[in-house]
Amino acid sequence: MSGENDLSEETRADAAIEDLEDLALDEDYALTSEFVDMVIDAADRGDGARMAELVSALRPADVADLMGFLTAGYREEIVPHIAPDALAEILSELETNIREEVLEIVAPATLAKALEALDSDDAADVVDDLDEAKRASVLAALPAHERTAIEASLAYEDETAGRLMQREVALAPQFWTVGQAMDHLSRESEALPELFFDLYVVDPAMRPVGATPVSHLLRARRETPLTEIMEPVTEIPVDMDQEEVAYIFDKYHLISAPVIEPGGRLVGQITVDDIVGVIQEESEEDMLALANVSDAGRDASMVGIVRSRLPWLVVNLVSETVAVSAIAIFQDEVAKIVALAVLLPIISSLGNNASVQTLAVAVRSLASRELNASNTWRVVRREVIAGLANGLVLSGIMGAAVVGFYHDWKLALTAGLALMADIIIAAVIGITAPLALEKLGRDPAVSSPIIVTFVTDFVGFFALLAIAAGILM
Amino acid sequence: MSGENDLSEETRADAAIEDLEDLALDEDYALTSEFVDMVIDAADRGDGARMAELVSALRPADVADLMGFLTAGYREEIVPHIAPDALAEILSELETNIREEVLEIVAPATLAKALEALDSDDAADVVDDLDEAKRASVLAALPAHERTAIEASLAYEDETAGRLMQREVALAPQFWTVGQAMDHLSRESEALPELFFDLYVVDPAMRPVGATPVSHLLRARRETPLTEIMEPVTEIPVDMDQEEVAYIFDKYHLISAPVIEPGGRLVGQITVDDIVGVIQEESEEDMLALANVSDAGRDASMVGIVRSRLPWLVVNLVSETVAVSAIAIFQDEVAKIVALAVLLPIISSLGNNASVQTLAVAVRSLASRELNASNTWRVVRREVIAGLANGLVLSGIMGAAVVGFYHDWKLALTAGLALMADIIIAAVIGITAPLALEKLGRDPAVSSPIIVTFVTDFVGFFALLAIAAGILM
Repeated sequence: MSGENDLSEETRADAAIEDLEDLALDEDYALTSEFVDMVIDAADRGDGARMAELVSALRPADVADLMGFLTAGYREEIVPHIAPDALAEILSELETNIREEVLEIVAPATLAKALEALDSDDAADVVDDLDEAKRASVLAALPAHERTAIEASLAYEDETAGRLMQREVALAPQFWTVGQAMDHLSRESEALPELFFDLYVVDPAMRPVGATPVSHLLRARRETPLTEIMEPVTEIPVDMDQEEVAYIFDKYHLISAPVIEPGGRLVGQITVDDIVGVIQEESEEDMLALANVSDAGRDASMVGIVRSRLPWLVVNLVSETVAVSAIAIFQDEVAKIVALAVLLPIISSLGNNASVQTLAVAVRSLASRELNASNTWRVVRREVIAGLANGLVLSGIMGAAVVGFYHDWKLALTAGLALMADIIIAAVIGITAPLALEKLGRDPAVSSPIIVTFVTDFVGFFALLAIAAGILM
Repeated sequence: MSGENDLSEETRADAAIEDLEDLALDEDYALTSEFVDMVIDAADRGDGARMAELVSALRPADVADLMGFLTAGYREEIVPHIAPDALAEILSELETNIREEVLEIVAPATLAKALEALDSDDAADVVDDLDEAKRASVLAALPAHERTAIEASLAYEDETAGRLMQREVALAPQFWTVGQAMDHLSRESEALPELFFDLYVVDPAMRPVGATPVSHLLRARRETPLTEIMEPVTEIPVDMDQEEVAYIFDKYHLISAPVIEPGGRLVGQITVDDIVGVIQEESEEDMLALANVSDAGRDASMVGIVRSRLPWLVVNLVSETVAVSAIAIFQDEVAKIVALAVLLPIISSLGNNASVQTLAVAVRSLASRELNASNTWRVVRREVIAGLANGLVLSGIMGAAVVGFYHDWKLALTAGLALMADIIIAAVIGITAPLALEKLGRDPAVSSPIIVTFVTDFVGFFALLAIAAGILM
């Protein structure tokens, strides 16, 4: 009887959690603001049981999202009510700046316990965010083999394959059959990753010679030699930049890939779920760089935000000051024909817009390796011809507008010619600036917007006023 | 003896292919321009055997890359030398506009044969690019069940889960044990996808009740009921937009997810390798939209390029013409103090830059669902305060520069105040424009750059000249 009661109470509790889950996420699995308000409300009332209940209804990624929607004060309220066994995964989901803050609240012993539940790559990520003193005490509280794994991972440079990979790998020697491999995989669950998709076949020097997806293992006959069903692998050098790794995963639709040391020895594997995050990161970086923002991360402090933007604005102020010197040179012309002051910003705006269009396309093509020595010349030519076509149409419209407003065909001719020149220069600089930066080994997205803005403004101003000085004076 | 000779010849041929592979790709697995030149060279000589040899040394994704680097004329030379069994995968790797062109060269019967080798989602993608007449003849040449699968896939709207999913799924009823499931998977290889990562457990109405990764199946004891080891699934409605699907995969680190009809019946699955491409696409779309480019795709024709950019430039020309009306109103002031004409573009450039910074961050936050009703007010306030801080610093520098150049502290005050006003407006419009577009159900990245440019320019021009009229006249 009592057993039955327990069961129905459990069922009721399950149903309540189910309801909370439905409340927490909208149909697109994004956290609802109603749920965030419920959490804030519980925190305001200091209702710890309610906070624990709300948080436990969420998956780790959603708790991480919740933290992003709360202010630091509320985060501090919530963290103690997170179940210790959920903490590890939540930590690995948090954005760096929020994670750093949460890590300060959690005790080293609790943290060490949580880290044991994570794969080596995720654990290393978390440890990397600890300050010197806390890192030492957390590492000391870990079992020796976990500590070694984490320290080994941290020895690789940030944003490389070595940091992305996990050391746990499903391996088989090349003389095994499918049956031997399957028996091994079902027994040796300790050393295996929590989840794996490919079994790597290695030679005696631990060099990968092939791989077979787990689903193919299931389908093959037990006596089949592994070498018969294995497929070629795409090896990732341990020091490869994560952007290259993401490119390779995307290109070849990889689910996992072995990571090798110089010499070819297998040291770990990277799985596609780690790569999805990298792809997001890398394209966000490009987008922000093109908008002249250094990434400050979610929930950056006010200082962080200003620091990510002000330096670019100052550079812009300086370069623009140089660009307007073209106007200063011709100030007598401007004083005589004030219409020029009205036309200057139009030409500058269009030149800018055209160059940023070309720039964005070029940065995208470079990132996806669609632009290299074999088609550079063709792409540059295409951009310039497109600029010519756009310039012709825009100059025509602008010239007509000037005639309409000012009834001055000489002024219209001046504006049209200057715009034409600026749009063509915009195409040239929009494609050559990122190519040149890439050739110099720099990120083509960073700082090219400043360069193209400067060039198109200077040329636009100079062209309009010099042509005006020639034709109109 | 002869057998030995055969073997060594085969080995030599293998070694030659190995060499070509090394030549084809650099250490980052990107196609080298040397290899592209070798292909062009072979095509120029009309050496079909060499073309076939070169192409066969590449993986499908690299052949697709190669096609992108060649001009249309060379592509036409190469296509006939692609091995028929490699064609299917290469087709599904090609960019749409190149694929359309290649599809015109290939005969319907060859095409039908190639499509049979693909999963239903990839095959549907290819068929979608065929013109009406060719589509009919290709579909007619396909076996009935393939045709049905492709037609069913095409019945879903473009860029939805229904189009992304494949209909082939590994399934088990909920009363099975691990052993029964494994026996089923090893026998029923016909109906199964070529590669799979999760086994979905379904109820009698075919609604998914859970899933278990294949690697967990291997590790469990044969007599364990599936319901004991299965994990909850994240269901994807068949009409969900691919951008939402990508968000969910990224957030929960999914490898595969079941796709359900209204009512909950399982109709297919989406795997992460399809999603990696979607994530790339969606963030590229945002980046290009912020640069006022409609995506024209790789190797777009000249007309395609102009069409993807010119409309935005025309809109920019019109909006900028309206913005400069602020200057036209105050032309007497400009004629009297020409320095104003020099300062106008600086203020406009900085206002623009500041608003695009805020805009890019907002678009990024909206895309990753980091911005919703619960933090909108906080984010807007933070942007405005950051604008205030940036504005103070920039106005200070600009004021000092004006005093330095023009020795006129009233002009410096005018410039400083106007810049301050413009930077704050830039912050306000940079965050509210994308929020408003999102609220209206529009893409926040598209058309917001035009809006923020117009607003910051108009306000900047008006502020500088109105303040000048008040202080200096």
